[in-house]
Amino acid sequence: MASCPVTSGSSSATAPAPETVARSLDAVRGFIEPRLAAAVAFDGETPQRLAAAMRYALLAPGKRLRPALALWAAQACGDPAVDRERHWSAAAAPAIALECIHAYSLVHDDLPAMDDDDLRRGRPTCHRAFDEATAILCGDALQALAFETLAADMPATAAARACLVLAHAAGGAALVGGQVDDLAAERGWLAEPPTAPDDQVAWMDRINRRKTGALFLASLELGGLAVAAEAGQLAALARFGRAFGLAFQIADDLLDAEGTEAALGKRVGKDAGRGKLTYPTVAGVAAARDRARTLAAEAAAAVEPLGEPAAELAALAHWIIARDH
Amino acid sequence: MASCPVTSGSSSATAPAPETVARSLDAVRGFIEPRLAAAVAFDGETPQRLAAAMRYALLAPGKRLRPALALWAAQACGDPAVDRERHWSAAAAPAIALECIHAYSLVHDDLPAMDDDDLRRGRPTCHRAFDEATAILCGDALQALAFETLAADMPATAAARACLVLAHAAGGAALVGGQVDDLAAERGWLAEPPTAPDDQVAWMDRINRRKTGALFLASLELGGLAVAAEAGQLAALARFGRAFGLAFQIADDLLDAEGTEAALGKRVGKDAGRGKLTYPTVAGVAAARDRARTLAAEAAAAVEPLGEPAAELAALAHWIIARDH
Repeated sequence: MASCPVTSGSSSATAPAPETVARSLDAVRGFIEPRLAAAVAFDGETPQRLAAAMRYALLAPGKRLRPALALWAAQACGDPAVDRERHWSAAAAPAIALECIHAYSLVHDDLPAMDDDDLRRGRPTCHRAFDEATAILCGDALQALAFETLAADMPATAAARACLVLAHAAGGAALVGGQVDDLAAERGWLAEPPTAPDDQVAWMDRINRRKTGALFLASLELGGLAVAAEAGQLAALARFGRAFGLAFQIADDLLDAEGTEAALGKRVGKDAGRGKLTYPTVAGVAAARDRARTLAAEAAAAVEPLGEPAAELAALAHWIIARDH
Repeated sequence: MASCPVTSGSSSATAPAPETVARSLDAVRGFIEPRLAAAVAFDGETPQRLAAAMRYALLAPGKRLRPALALWAAQACGDPAVDRERHWSAAAAPAIALECIHAYSLVHDDLPAMDDDDLRRGRPTCHRAFDEATAILCGDALQALAFETLAADMPATAAARACLVLAHAAGGAALVGGQVDDLAAERGWLAEPPTAPDDQVAWMDRINRRKTGALFLASLELGGLAVAAEAGQLAALARFGRAFGLAFQIADDLLDAEGTEAALGKRVGKDAGRGKLTYPTVAGVAAARDRARTLAAEAAAAVEPLGEPAAELAALAHWIIARDH
């Protein structure tokens, strides 16, 4: 079992060195990846082809941001007298479940009927590596696995609450609803598409709050729940999550506009290229970058009351807008 | 609210009149359908097109077999001194959740990349009525809604257990795994497809135990859990479910071979037509029918110890092999 990182960041609004955050994320990966692998080490009831597709999707190289949020939320809210390793262990099931939901949503979003992407994290997408039917079913099974993991590995009261939070975040009012609205403009499903820049920004905010933001919020809440966080702590995590989620998405749009394919491991310029609204195209690159910075500072400030155990969260908020992948 | 049916069947192995079972199923529909409608009456966070697709899929005319199993399992195991209506109310959330999972699995199975069906329950399939992306996302959101319903509407301990049972039944080792294996023979994914009739029957049994049987078993277990059934009662329900599930699938294959499209509301002969193994083609119609009868009698006998409150379950087992749709 990997040990938890030594915190060298601080929870102040000063941006930490990127290497610090990279090391913290490495520690998360060292902790969670063997557990992800164990979650998809199936017995004979799961067909081999399906099991292979699930492993391909879940164990693909990734930042593991949602597990990181869950583990760091648990350490930020847990009893400081208890070893951080214990808090991370308590939040391991939510961290796995969150990554299952995230991985399934990527597999389905990449499908020919959806975004029709061939490349994901630098590798062929699931339906290209296997086939479309297997990719659909792989996503379906990963979603079920998320709830099975929460229900099997958390105490009953926390498990029930965690299933509720995750199901809502993964459902039609959040993750799936955001994806539908993201497709809507492209597909002509909107009776009155937004045209004024302010309306377009509000429309993008609404999509992102559900498509990516809701699962970030759920990650933080599940991490908190795993260590029986108090209401005030959960409220601080939620404030962090709302600002962090939007900052993340604006940064993602900036990378899509300006990043390199080699660093990102996927096609760049694809969103703007298919006529999708993005923050830089609607608001301009400079304004988008300013807003992302403001949001990152807001996020970092939100967790300041949680003190030094929340240092990784605060550092992540600054890093997320400075990363190149 | 509809009242519970007056039981006129008996739990003996004698087959009841089909009208009796039809009336019992009508009572289940009267109870559950308004609740299904309420489960997909969304607020503004769920996009209208997605909400419409979810309503289309979940509220399509159907037998509501899984809700029936859950409600009848609850009445079979609940305190006989308590009104049956109370037992049904306790099992309402599982009944809704089970129908969500069933409806989502039909939407995904019908997709062009899977079984490529245009007609389901006499109406255009979801991807034909809407579009492929919406159908994929509709299924995804219905799966999440199943777990949200369990977690929101059951007491925490029962909810956690129910989420575990349902997630396993809906996952890669059961529902999804069965569908993968069902596609496998057609698509040439099997290294060594079964060729001897006995091996082919064993292969079909294995698929059906997971593809349809597991969700029937989960329906019964969730109904039992909702009324805090004892281990002996749950074991009787499980014996019933294993026999019932296979009997159901053999009857389904017989209908596919011999039924009429008008009665079934879907293409007939499609399974045999695409070279899929079916019980009548492998074992012969007479042998398949004999086996279904034996299994139905086994199922009815399994719930005899539960007495008169299990009469609907016993009657259903006989009806399922005599139905024409």
